[in-house]
Amino acid sequence: MTEASLVGTEFTSISVAEFFYRNRQMVGFGNPTQAVYSTIRELVENSLDACEDAKILPEINVIIRRESSDLLLIEVSDNGPGMPYQFVPEAFGKVLFGSKYGLRHKRGTFGLGVTMAVLYGQLTTNYPATIITKHGQGEANEFRLLVDIKNNTPIIEYSGPNSSHSIGTKVTLKIRGDLKRSKLRITEYLRLTSVSTPHAQITLLIDDNPPIQFGRYSKMIPTPPRISRPHPRSADIELLHHLISNNNSMTLKAFLVDTFQKCGTKTATRFLHFLSLNPNRTTESLTRDEIVRISNALRNYNGFDKPESQCLSPIGKDSLMEALNRLYPSASIKYEIRGPFEWNGHPTILEGAVVITDSTPAENPSLIRFANKVPLLYDASDDVLTLAMKRINWNRYGVDTNSQVLLFVNLCSTRIPYREAGKQSIAAIPAIQSEAELLFKTLGRAIKRESSSIRRSKRNARKMREFSKYFRLIARYGALLASVETTPDTSKLVESLFEVK
Amino acid sequence: MTEASLVGTEFTSISVAEFFYRNRQMVGFGNPTQAVYSTIRELVENSLDACEDAKILPEINVIIRRESSDLLLIEVSDNGPGMPYQFVPEAFGKVLFGSKYGLRHKRGTFGLGVTMAVLYGQLTTNYPATIITKHGQGEANEFRLLVDIKNNTPIIEYSGPNSSHSIGTKVTLKIRGDLKRSKLRITEYLRLTSVSTPHAQITLLIDDNPPIQFGRYSKMIPTPPRISRPHPRSADIELLHHLISNNNSMTLKAFLVDTFQKCGTKTATRFLHFLSLNPNRTTESLTRDEIVRISNALRNYNGFDKPESQCLSPIGKDSLMEALNRLYPSASIKYEIRGPFEWNGHPTILEGAVVITDSTPAENPSLIRFANKVPLLYDASDDVLTLAMKRINWNRYGVDTNSQVLLFVNLCSTRIPYREAGKQSIAAIPAIQSEAELLFKTLGRAIKRESSSIRRSKRNARKMREFSKYFRLIARYGALLASVETTPDTSKLVESLFEVK
Repeated sequence: MTEASLVGTEFTSISVAEFFYRNRQMVGFGNPTQAVYSTIRELVENSLDACEDAKILPEINVIIRRESSDLLLIEVSDNGPGMPYQFVPEAFGKVLFGSKYGLRHKRGTFGLGVTMAVLYGQLTTNYPATIITKHGQGEANEFRLLVDIKNNTPIIEYSGPNSSHSIGTKVTLKIRGDLKRSKLRITEYLRLTSVSTPHAQITLLIDDNPPIQFGRYSKMIPTPPRISRPHPRSADIELLHHLISNNNSMTLKAFLVDTFQKCGTKTATRFLHFLSLNPNRTTESLTRDEIVRISNALRNYNGFDKPESQCLSPIGKDSLMEALNRLYPSASIKYEIRGPFEWNGHPTILEGAVVITDSTPAENPSLIRFANKVPLLYDASDDVLTLAMKRINWNRYGVDTNSQVLLFVNLCSTRIPYREAGKQSIAAIPAIQSEAELLFKTLGRAIKRESSSIRRSKRNARKMREFSKYFRLIARYGALLASVETTPDTSKLVESLFEVK
Repeated sequence: MTEASLVGTEFTSISVAEFFYRNRQMVGFGNPTQAVYSTIRELVENSLDACEDAKILPEINVIIRRESSDLLLIEVSDNGPGMPYQFVPEAFGKVLFGSKYGLRHKRGTFGLGVTMAVLYGQLTTNYPATIITKHGQGEANEFRLLVDIKNNTPIIEYSGPNSSHSIGTKVTLKIRGDLKRSKLRITEYLRLTSVSTPHAQITLLIDDNPPIQFGRYSKMIPTPPRISRPHPRSADIELLHHLISNNNSMTLKAFLVDTFQKCGTKTATRFLHFLSLNPNRTTESLTRDEIVRISNALRNYNGFDKPESQCLSPIGKDSLMEALNRLYPSASIKYEIRGPFEWNGHPTILEGAVVITDSTPAENPSLIRFANKVPLLYDASDDVLTLAMKRINWNRYGVDTNSQVLLFVNLCSTRIPYREAGKQSIAAIPAIQSEAELLFKTLGRAIKRESSSIRRSKRNARKMREFSKYFRLIARYGALLASVETTPDTSKLVESLFEVK
């Protein structure tokens, strides 16, 4: 790598950091508005992931300070477990380095976002990122970092102990950005984060304004998802080669049972019989064509059970309902869940809640998307959830202009098929789309039940008002006829008629 | 890099090849339909770029052969200059390696697509890619390659001379894909490619069907774009640092004049005066804060001329009109061009043609997008050109339900800000959007003139028909009255009245 790559020559290679530096619009850093939003989003998600792993109730502080019209200081701190010091430089200064490549549910996935935030700061202000983190016993450590874009490596400007920092990780960046135009997105993002992560408490402090608090709505800490073995359906040729070469030679049957989930001795035997392969053959002896054949069969064989779900961490009914009840106190709310199912072998769950409020609807229903609990605020139009929603005839379910229907849907998977590296919308994977349609239909039926029950109770309330009026009159006339002074109380009678307590 | 990355552990790094292998939906390889389309697109674009550089009239053959229901052999061959043999393995087997990073217009940009096609073939069929190429004198060379995903390096299965191959590059891949569902997209893509590259001749051969021919509509070979120096507005801190450290210490003034386009001695002097920097300071002596200050000023100073356009290669009026005239023989066609302008310092041109046909419009107007001559067929909804088009009040320009209006727009830039690595839509960069709106308005005025002239000529034709009918009658009665046997011919009179030749 020499000067060639930035200015141009014949054949050359660029680092992945340079690729994303050149194409930063792909990762949410295309303009000064998006950049502020993405920076905060990436830092908050890192903090949430860190706390969740350590079963800590997250307390996150987000500070934005305008140092001049477009020069912003952004600081995100948490009460998490901190980061092992030796990993800090690369986690913040190397693209595609991270703790998030395991087969389990995580908010972050690419090891891309935080480094992009550091890089964007460096590009626009030349300030290094400051990371102070306390991990384990002993003093906290402080790092000041830049990214060597050409080589995709961190440049450590300073590192040393910091005795004043007592808990978690604090990241400080300076970037040029447009706070005015990004503010609304940021508050919306944090509000929705408190819906999908109701056990988190997030405080936003902008300049000298009073702090804004999001959550906490629940004290239930979700069980951290566990890393699981791959599902057989995910075994493309590449993964299969890899798994074979990383295990000592063993029998085919033992290999299948050891390596994959949902593949016990019986299933493995049946599968190998189906393929006419001797279960006692060693993996070493497999020809290339046989590996291809096994991979194709693993992905198409119908005999494997649905994937495990302990590697996933959905929001859950109680938590989601609790958060939505707090945000929409007088609304009617229903929750549904589908799965686990798999797309390309990746364990996946879809959960959703429908919120019916009294307000006049703008578009109805309105979809609020989450992927592994991360609110997705941009690029809705080609998202798989939007596509699925559009295929539903909502009129049939009583969605009308009288009440606003909000659909909160969270796609939960060990692999979110984002359409772009900026993680704003989900690709139209058929398996996901059809499950989403089924989820929407179930939610639709809940809406229908709910709106007819709302209609029924409105009708009942009206009837009851009229009955009580006339009962009062009848009672008064009765009393007059009987020459009784006081009119008897009819309300109890009406209430018992309408079964009201 | 060990086994950890595919199966999961704590902190680790993955290669860029593995990133895109995991997220292949981001680069157009998300499903078997898209994969066929993307494979062909990437190979055809490589061939076109190669021929254009060498000023060769491209002849490209695309062969798709179904070996079983979903096992496809795809072969793309061209009459280009071939590739230097030492670069072949990395160009096809290493992500982010390519010839396309210079500051000039190219179809390809990322060094990503072709390697992804190789990788997808390998994933789904385990077959290596075969590349046969003849470069310079001597025998052609043949390579059979796979990608080492973990390390992002090519695996050369075979390389050696091939004496039967006489010209250009031929790439053969086997992939599993859905030809039935991708066929229409592929022909549409090739048809539109022949619009934006009318000097190319592309032949598509599917199984034993008769070959389909696209183009050639023109024999004009466009001037290959030249690599140019960066425009001052593109000098973010990173680029500036880079340019300074890659030049020997020189005076500030000499540095500016030597390094940037549109910055002669006078402009450099004025600029440095504006910044209160001594023009004779050496670049070596600059402090970090001064570099930041210079970078900010370069990007905001108003005294630099618009960028050069010789690094760009628009389709051009003659070529585009020629192709469109061939495809829409009876339509009315107008061409407009805007620029060069710059976005973030990247030289950019927008050109467009409007085609008005007699057919009944579906949506009106209909937009056909190109980026550096590459047709963009997916993800139109959030594209900057779509957004710009939607901001125009087309009714005002006489776009109605009587005739179909087609808008062909090509964004031509040294840097296309794609929204995703799959290169299907362009990010909403304000400078591009406002230029696109201006282009659409100019095209709109052309539509208005055209449709009123169409209306006028329709009205005239109607009048002329009526006039000639009555003139014939009058002439006949006149002849009868004058007892003349033959009715005189009135057509010449009518034609001269209506100025028809």
